[in-house]
Amino acid sequence: MTDSTPSTSRPRILSGMRPTGKLHLGNYMGALYNWVKLQHEYECYFFIADYHALTTDYANTANLRENIREVMLDFLAAGLDPAVSTLFIQSDVKAHFELNSLFSMITPLSWLERVPTYKDQQEQLKEKDLATYGFLGYPLLQSADILLYKPRYVPVGADQVAHVELTREVARRFNQFFPGDFYLSPGAAPWEMGAIQEKARKLADDKTKSTFSAHELYEAAHQTRKITGFGRHEVLPEPDVFLTPSPKLPGTDGRKMSKSYRNTILLSDPETEVRAKLKTMVTDPARIRREDRGNPDVCPVFDLHRVFSTEQTQQNARVGCTTAGIGCIECKNWLADAVVEHLAPIQERRRYYESNFVEVEEILAQGAVRAATRANQTMQEVRDAVGLR
Amino acid sequence: MTDSTPSTSRPRILSGMRPTGKLHLGNYMGALYNWVKLQHEYECYFFIADYHALTTDYANTANLRENIREVMLDFLAAGLDPAVSTLFIQSDVKAHFELNSLFSMITPLSWLERVPTYKDQQEQLKEKDLATYGFLGYPLLQSADILLYKPRYVPVGADQVAHVELTREVARRFNQFFPGDFYLSPGAAPWEMGAIQEKARKLADDKTKSTFSAHELYEAAHQTRKITGFGRHEVLPEPDVFLTPSPKLPGTDGRKMSKSYRNTILLSDPETEVRAKLKTMVTDPARIRREDRGNPDVCPVFDLHRVFSTEQTQQNARVGCTTAGIGCIECKNWLADAVVEHLAPIQERRRYYESNFVEVEEILAQGAVRAATRANQTMQEVRDAVGLR
Ligand code: SF4
Ligand code: SF4
Repeated sequence: MTDSTPSTSRPRILSGMRPTGKLHLGNYMGALYNWVKLQHEYECYFFIADYHALTTDYANTANLRENIREVMLDFLAAGLDPAVSTLFIQSDVKAHFELNSLFSMITPLSWLERVPTYKDQQEQLKEKDLATYGFLGYPLLQSADILLYKPRYVPVGADQVAHVELTREVARRFNQFFPGDFYLSPGAAPWEMGAIQEKARKLADDKTKSTFSAHELYEAAHQTRKITGFGRHEVLPEPDVFLTPSPKLPGTDGRKMSKSYRNTILLSDPETEVRAKLKTMVTDPARIRREDRGNPDVCPVFDLHRVFSTEQTQQNARVGCTTAGIGCIECKNWLADAVVEHLAPIQERRRYYESNFVEVEEILAQGAVRAATRANQTMQEVRDAVGLR
Repeated sequence: MTDSTPSTSRPRILSGMRPTGKLHLGNYMGALYNWVKLQHEYECYFFIADYHALTTDYANTANLRENIREVMLDFLAAGLDPAVSTLFIQSDVKAHFELNSLFSMITPLSWLERVPTYKDQQEQLKEKDLATYGFLGYPLLQSADILLYKPRYVPVGADQVAHVELTREVARRFNQFFPGDFYLSPGAAPWEMGAIQEKARKLADDKTKSTFSAHELYEAAHQTRKITGFGRHEVLPEPDVFLTPSPKLPGTDGRKMSKSYRNTILLSDPETEVRAKLKTMVTDPARIRREDRGNPDVCPVFDLHRVFSTEQTQQNARVGCTTAGIGCIECKNWLADAVVEHLAPIQERRRYYESNFVEVEEILAQGAVRAATRANQTMQEVRDAVGLR
């Protein structure tokens, strides 16, 4: 019943992203950039959460198919390597839905009602009707998404920690209702075993009994308080949060970069577009004329320098700005150079996959098989523990 | 996208039952007995709702596997014929869970909160903690169970009508958010088509446009109010309730026959057991001595006569009772004869399948394939309509 054949010895991680369409620099630095760096050190599962897109956008799915396609292209463009990472679409692996249904049965409504994002998002997205059963339950679907792969870590930004915490609670509750196999650890002392077997005989009310199930032994061990020699294979181990950096990434209007503010720079924006967008970006509002000195620490352009420019360029920009040695146009040009340079290999990979889309389909098909194999293995253990055939 | 290849021309029906263990006469007369009679007239799907058992009994699943086995034996024993009906276990068809997740997204919480059985059952089963997400949502899982097979009718007793009503509402909402294909019906008049195409050209703002999508034509038709020539293939047609008789069936203590009252006679009870249980059954409480006259209309034994005995026997019992011509022992013997006779072929089939259980496994495996084929076809249409790949 236990997972005795890991396909690799690297610790497993899993993370997902909603298919919002072409990704912007904020999406990239908050997730993909980190994922790419993690993929050689961990056994990685990354997925496109198509059903999660429905939680908020069920009333308008016209672009869903296209959005999934774009996000997948950006996954590959950003450098996720299908040879080492498993890339797949959530709904290609049906076990997500079965485990979600199962978790529903054991999860108190109150746990979901108190997830902080529940009320927050309903407030923020007032124009959408989010008083649905699925919106209340989406953190539970997320718990299923995660636990299905029994990851050691879930790489998330700070805003997602509460969801992983719920996932841990759900795993704990599952393991409590449906304990896995007990086993006698090799380190158990012989005198311990004697006392435990004696207790087990008493519990069974049969003085001659000599063979016991692991469960009977565990119960006896528990009651004699000699449980040191016993262990339990928990069916769904609790994953830990792996807090990934998500640097401050302002959009062209200085607010947080976000699709809904229309202030984004896309991973797939061509060079001219990147340069044009950065040209219009807001700067330190106190620096009105060329000869005014500026303050990089209140300038959104400089926030992007911090992420994309070399230390040297950042230094030059800071000095130039604070001494009025450079104009904002020059400063933005330096930034544009850095961004364009960072995006160049990404866009080259994107062009490759755009013109070889059949390869992308193949990667997704293989990813679905790989993910489903692992997911179905967990699901079999889960069904065994619950007592479903 | 439409269901153009029905596997049979008989109208389709679908119904399910929770695996509560060996079935009693109440379960039988309320469902199985009707199903057996329906199976030659309709294309039938009957399933064991194993996940529904978890909505109320997630905290104790020790007997689940055994209960599923017993219910399946009773299905076959009662006369459900795997050659004409598709018999399967809910969780063998994963599409149930995907459609459940999808319905979650579009269903207002308030619809579920106002399902009459929600508060009722929480009251009745106070000893269980039913304030779970899954208990609130089980009528939605039921909607998925049903709509996945696009049945024309759902045979249910009166107490389940509210659930089918919710299923119809969910179907309506789905069809409204995700309309299926429009088509031009052959009966559309040429002059109608002219006006509609002219409108479509206007809507497209292109005077030379000459080919239109079905959707464009429908929109134009709608706006010209000439929609007579158009139709729409709804993805999820609303099924109708098929009200099946569920006669009053008292248990041995005179209350409704129910597992929780421990007053049942099982389909699989051997003759001696049936006779012994009926011997202890309560009768008209006013008939204390043999020479007292009784009133069959207030006697639970007579309620069973109505279901199992011939008109002639009922007549004899009524006369005998009201004239004190027979004693209750004799009356119960007659009833026992009738019940035993009714159960004989059922128990013979049960014995056959018990000693050939591998056949039962085979029937369930084939049923799962047949059900999944139909379910996956619906799911493909659903995913197309929603815009999932
Ligand atoms: S010079 Fe650069 S850092 Fe300074 S205000 Fe202008 S854009 Fe911002
Ligand atoms: S004779 Fe039959 S119907 Fe009359 S009270 Fe006795 S059991 Fe009931």
